[in-house]
Amino acid sequence: MNNPVTVEVTRGNRVESRHHGAAVVVDGDGNLVFSAGDVDAPTFPRSACKAMQALPLIESGAADAYGLSDQQLALACSSHSGEDAHVETAASMLAKAGHNDDVLECGAHWSFDQKTLIHQVRTLEKPTALHNNCSGKHSGFICACAHMGYELKGYVEYDHPLQRDIRATMQNLTGAVLDHDSCGTDGCSIPTYAVPLKALAHGFAKMGTGQGLEPLRAKASKRLIDACMAEPFFVAGTKRACTAIMQIAPGKIFAKTGAEGVFCAVLPDQGLSIAVKAEDGVTRAAEAMITALLARYFDRDSSEHAALMAMTNKPMHNWNGRHVGDVRVTDVLFG
Amino acid sequence: MNNPVTVEVTRGNRVESRHHGAAVVVDGDGNLVFSAGDVDAPTFPRSACKAMQALPLIESGAADAYGLSDQQLALACSSHSGEDAHVETAASMLAKAGHNDDVLECGAHWSFDQKTLIHQVRTLEKPTALHNNCSGKHSGFICACAHMGYELKGYVEYDHPLQRDIRATMQNLTGAVLDHDSCGTDGCSIPTYAVPLKALAHGFAKMGTGQGLEPLRAKASKRLIDACMAEPFFVAGTKRACTAIMQIAPGKIFAKTGAEGVFCAVLPDQGLSIAVKAEDGVTRAAEAMITALLARYFDRDSSEHAALMAMTNKPMHNWNGRHVGDVRVTDVLFG
Repeated sequence: MNNPVTVEVTRGNRVESRHHGAAVVVDGDGNLVFSAGDVDAPTFPRSACKAMQALPLIESGAADAYGLSDQQLALACSSHSGEDAHVETAASMLAKAGHNDDVLECGAHWSFDQKTLIHQVRTLEKPTALHNNCSGKHSGFICACAHMGYELKGYVEYDHPLQRDIRATMQNLTGAVLDHDSCGTDGCSIPTYAVPLKALAHGFAKMGTGQGLEPLRAKASKRLIDACMAEPFFVAGTKRACTAIMQIAPGKIFAKTGAEGVFCAVLPDQGLSIAVKAEDGVTRAAEAMITALLARYFDRDSSEHAALMAMTNKPMHNWNGRHVGDVRVTDVLFG
Repeated sequence: MNNPVTVEVTRGNRVESRHHGAAVVVDGDGNLVFSAGDVDAPTFPRSACKAMQALPLIESGAADAYGLSDQQLALACSSHSGEDAHVETAASMLAKAGHNDDVLECGAHWSFDQKTLIHQVRTLEKPTALHNNCSGKHSGFICACAHMGYELKGYVEYDHPLQRDIRATMQNLTGAVLDHDSCGTDGCSIPTYAVPLKALAHGFAKMGTGQGLEPLRAKASKRLIDACMAEPFFVAGTKRACTAIMQIAPGKIFAKTGAEGVFCAVLPDQGLSIAVKAEDGVTRAAEAMITALLARYFDRDSSEHAALMAMTNKPMHNWNGRHVGDVRVTDVLFG
């Protein structure tokens, strides 16, 4: 099945580039509320599923044992920009478990955000694993392993008990089979599993509603989603889409992006979850798609709707600040 | 007409992302030698056509009057990374015309290349117009205007005599109508005109062969293309695709990328030109497409073919250096 064009990028009065994509909205029972494109296609959620991967941190009792704050839990679900507060918070999580960044297996990279990168270059010799956008997730992994008595070394490997726990958790949430065949390696070296886009959305709808989950898992899910919604800066960072979306409607939207054009969101009050995948992996397309779909669930005359649509259809400016074109979604997302 | 999937990106043993694209190969008479996708669709060439835009610099006599070197001519056709040698060369071009960067109207930005950006941050307070990737083109514009006695101010505007000259030149090369309707504004503020992809390729084939061009234009075209092939570092920079492609087969390939997934190339010895457009505007797809098509025109057992195919199908590594997937072209480009 082909994916339709969901996002166009204009220049002058022409369309310059087009993005194909798939998008799905489901409720807590997994019923399709909206769908466009191939929502059955196996899709690597990449970082979009970090809140799922953080469940063992809560369910094991590690978060309580180490007294993790909402900021720390949000960071465990984050792809952060490596701003100072992110780096310090990751370090503080490791310290609570009695460790430091020597145990992190995520690798190091400079910030993807230019302003933060410039700050890092002016204050650091080189980035450490704490600056990796996944350091919060990995610090949460270390807390979970330390509390459960798992060996730390190799915690990113497919057969490590932590990754087995995560695999079982995500299988329970998505209903998809996660195995070597569906497994790839993520940027930070942990396993990532391709699951149908609608199964990914259903997993998040279960997290957002608690429907079909054991009470412990439902409670842990709510705690993580609430922490992210309470501390959106710690889920991404300054001017980042996840943070901005959650700031538009505090407590009403959970949103998390992943590499290669994935974006997931939960509307807990409405018992719905949204997942999108830009077929080409492009972030600008995924961002436009998720905000367009989120806007559907707010009153057309609300400030939330206006703010989400301002993120959906937005002008592009060149180096001199001239308006040269626009990113806009197609009618496919308003069907 | 739809564009086929021309490039796939894998992770584990799954395809994670797909790029649709159009590609065309033409000879000096404009005959189609190969085509895939919608090659009649109007396409903004963006920076891929900088060699066309530099023709007035040669044809006006400015390049001779100011004694511009091959490095300076290559820089006039470049989208450079803002490395020190690029910046110094742009400044030297302006100096030859008796000006400095105060007259540049391209705007300023930090380098897009991370290593260069880090160097810039450690050595500069902030970037100037000389660091803009288009500063060589703009410095060439200043030389042309200064020599022809055109007013400098507003040289980026649609109705400025320099832009009229460029418009007439590109109309002659591509055979397409360039007017307000086909015009958009480029990142550096000059007009960019949407032309059919095959017309863009034909324009470059004329530049590469001289076929159908007045002798002065044919000679000026050869001079620019030869300068770029002689000084490929000045067309892009360290580890950049244009530079690397031209270094693979010195004197046999001219290659120039443009924003939003455009790439053009000329094979002067074979009298052919290639133009590709990744529908989604993604650089990794455009690079894979252009190198795959270039490889078709080298012996399958040659080092050039091997080097071009190594740029076409290439492994991706994560922050720990693990091989996580591959970028690869589809059979569409081998039809």
